[in-house]
Amino acid sequence: MTKTDILIIGAGPVGLFTVFEAGLLQLRCHLVDALPQPGGQLAEIYPKKPIYDIPGFPSVGAGELVDNLMEQIAPFKPGFTLGERAETLEKLADGSFLVTTNEGTQINAPVIAIAAGLGSFEPRKPPIDNIETFEQHGVAYMIKEPEDFRGKRVVISGGGDSALDWAIHLSEITAELTLVHRRKGFRGALDSVDKVERLAAEGRINLITEAQVIGLKGDGQLKEVVINHKTEGEFSKATDFFIPLFGLTPKMGPLQDWGLELDPKEGIFVDTFDYQTNIPGIFAIGDINTYPGKLKLILCGFHEATLMVQSAFKIARPDGRLSFKYTTVNGVHGF
Amino acid sequence: MTKTDILIIGAGPVGLFTVFEAGLLQLRCHLVDALPQPGGQLAEIYPKKPIYDIPGFPSVGAGELVDNLMEQIAPFKPGFTLGERAETLEKLADGSFLVTTNEGTQINAPVIAIAAGLGSFEPRKPPIDNIETFEQHGVAYMIKEPEDFRGKRVVISGGGDSALDWAIHLSEITAELTLVHRRKGFRGALDSVDKVERLAAEGRINLITEAQVIGLKGDGQLKEVVINHKTEGEFSKATDFFIPLFGLTPKMGPLQDWGLELDPKEGIFVDTFDYQTNIPGIFAIGDINTYPGKLKLILCGFHEATLMVQSAFKIARPDGRLSFKYTTVNGVHGF
Ligand SMILES: Cc1cc2nc3c(=O)[nH]c(=O)nc-3n(C[C@H](O)[C@H](O)[C@H](O)COP(=O)(O)OP(=O)(O)OC[C@H]3O[C@@H](n4cnc5c(N)ncnc54)[C@H](O)[C@@H]3O)c2cc1C
Ligand SMILES: Cc1cc2nc3c(=O)[nH]c(=O)nc-3n(C[C@H](O)[C@H](O)[C@H](O)COP(=O)(O)OP(=O)(O)OC[C@H]3O[C@@H](n4cnc5c(N)ncnc54)[C@H](O)[C@@H]3O)c2cc1C
Repeated sequence: MTKTDILIIGAGPVGLFTVFEAGLLQLRCHLVDALPQPGGQLAEIYPKKPIYDIPGFPSVGAGELVDNLMEQIAPFKPGFTLGERAETLEKLADGSFLVTTNEGTQINAPVIAIAAGLGSFEPRKPPIDNIETFEQHGVAYMIKEPEDFRGKRVVISGGGDSALDWAIHLSEITAELTLVHRRKGFRGALDSVDKVERLAAEGRINLITEAQVIGLKGDGQLKEVVINHKTEGEFSKATDFFIPLFGLTPKMGPLQDWGLELDPKEGIFVDTFDYQTNIPGIFAIGDINTYPGKLKLILCGFHEATLMVQSAFKIARPDGRLSFKYTTVNGVHGF
Repeated sequence: MTKTDILIIGAGPVGLFTVFEAGLLQLRCHLVDALPQPGGQLAEIYPKKPIYDIPGFPSVGAGELVDNLMEQIAPFKPGFTLGERAETLEKLADGSFLVTTNEGTQINAPVIAIAAGLGSFEPRKPPIDNIETFEQHGVAYMIKEPEDFRGKRVVISGGGDSALDWAIHLSEITAELTLVHRRKGFRGALDSVDKVERLAAEGRINLITEAQVIGLKGDGQLKEVVINHKTEGEFSKATDFFIPLFGLTPKMGPLQDWGLELDPKEGIFVDTFDYQTNIPGIFAIGDINTYPGKLKLILCGFHEATLMVQSAFKIARPDGRLSFKYTTVNGVHGF
């Protein structure tokens, strides 16, 4: 079980910046995110788009902003549990909280900061009846550790950037990489499309277009995918892994059962003194919260995180003395 | 008389960023600042210090942040009245406000954003009895337009960076540049000290140390300064200008008489819905305001400015339709 001062649910820009402001007060943080990488919407939905309304940046790429935030918080050595969804909340006898993820990871902290944005990013699953029985037994919806696929046979399906990018990347280490896509053309970046076609011509990617994976076979562990091709009809293909990459959609999901006062559309209700929810010790910041005047903008979440950690300090360090300082006076001292 | 949508009092980081957020809603802004340059405390107190707690910048020079903000707001062509203090406020019959500066400049707007920080930066004046009678007649406490000094005889006094920097800079265009300083050593950056000493050795700066300007003479217009030297005693020196540069201190000053509810130490009271004061149409943002939980940090002012302009829009465009958009979707379109 991981113990920390502030458990941050969501590693979007707001969750990340919380680590910095908490660190200035010598509070340690651990972040949980359903996505395999930090950055929230910026990393998942629009990593290459410029943002114009971050103060001090006439323009900054979303991915670049996430990289900058990761660099800014590095001195405070945050812990990360990525690719897992915070699922259940329990209040312990000592007043602290215990959160358990969908994979059973447990984190204990006196303060919880919910920076869950639009909700936890969940994969869009293809409509294959028995797909759930193969999850964690050959079916994966995202790639947490590419090395897991070294020397294996892998079937990816999808036609967007993440299908293309992972097909290119994994083809270097897999025994066999098959990319199945419903249409002839791809939706991804042109240079990725070119690269996939070149690798297909060189025989390093087995490209099957105008086809869909419609069935899965195996006993406990995945053994074969059944592919339906527009002109050639149905055939089976032996494989170790099937990775459908049809994008992710955010769902508020389990947080709705934590006893928090909320409006399912607008978000979790907080005050503007410290962005605390109706449960003392649980705060909500960034896109997930709502209050009179709320704007769902990154810069607003940064402010909320900053005010929030002041109250978090009082809970996590009941005997501590809180002193407010600018960073410039002494620089930033990590742990 | 200048007319605008939002009159911003204070061109510190928060006033500057207000122009950006207002611009996204197609509102025009005009800024007034007592300082001759934009940037507020960052420009006046610590232009060369790094700041570590601006989100997305692991470190940014204060001056660099101001430059970035100026670049970010450029598409929205803000107006500037610099080197003048907003002095009086009047409410006109049409509900708009008329603000007059200490130099008589008048600006009319339906919305006022007070982003006055610690107050208006006022020069520390040397204790010379009749100095006020020569203000605007040969005595200047800051340099708004260096060209005013071309071909003139100028006496600067002070031992910090701004005395050194201006002595170096003006020595290139004045007929004669004298720098008077109380001590032998200077407090400024080492390379500026070196440069002043080199220019003195070359006869391009007339350096008088261990001396003070103790008197001023002239009839209406300044003609001579009286200098008291540690060993040589008192002597007079003919000059066109005397520029004492002993730093600036911020004073809330005239804003205290505008009928705003405030605590002279903490600032102007605002709500956290839109940071409006007790006077409808007048908002207060950044260091100058106070509310439960307030932290006097740059990033908090950015958030306040962003929420504020939503309400400003409703006042300035009573028939307009407010639509909330991210910047990324369409980029930034100036005027
Ligand atoms: C196309 C687009 C353009 C945009 N442009 C701008 C812009 O220009 N400027 C701007 O300010 N904003 C913009 N936004 C909005 C901006 O992206 C959001 O305001 C920002 O992402 C909010 O950050 P956050 O950290 O609160 O949440 P998010 O970025 O949504 O991150 C929340 C994270 O929490 C995780 N999570 C949620 N629930 C759980 C759980 N139970 N367990 C584990 N993890 C969980 C999610 O997986 C996610 O990674 C844009 C949004 C989009 C979609
Ligand atoms: C040494 C030092 C280090 C700091 N370090 C940090 C840091 O690391 N991070 C951080 O977030 N903050 C830091 N701060 C605080 C930060 O500088 C302030 O939060 C910030 O300047 C507030 O911005 P502002 O725009 O509200 O006001 P200001 O920067 O104070 O600007 C207000 C402007 O309004 C003008 N003004 C006021 N009244 C009038 C009037 N009547 N007429 C005309 N003009 C007027 C003033 O002349 C001034 O230029 C530091 C401050 C200092 C002194």
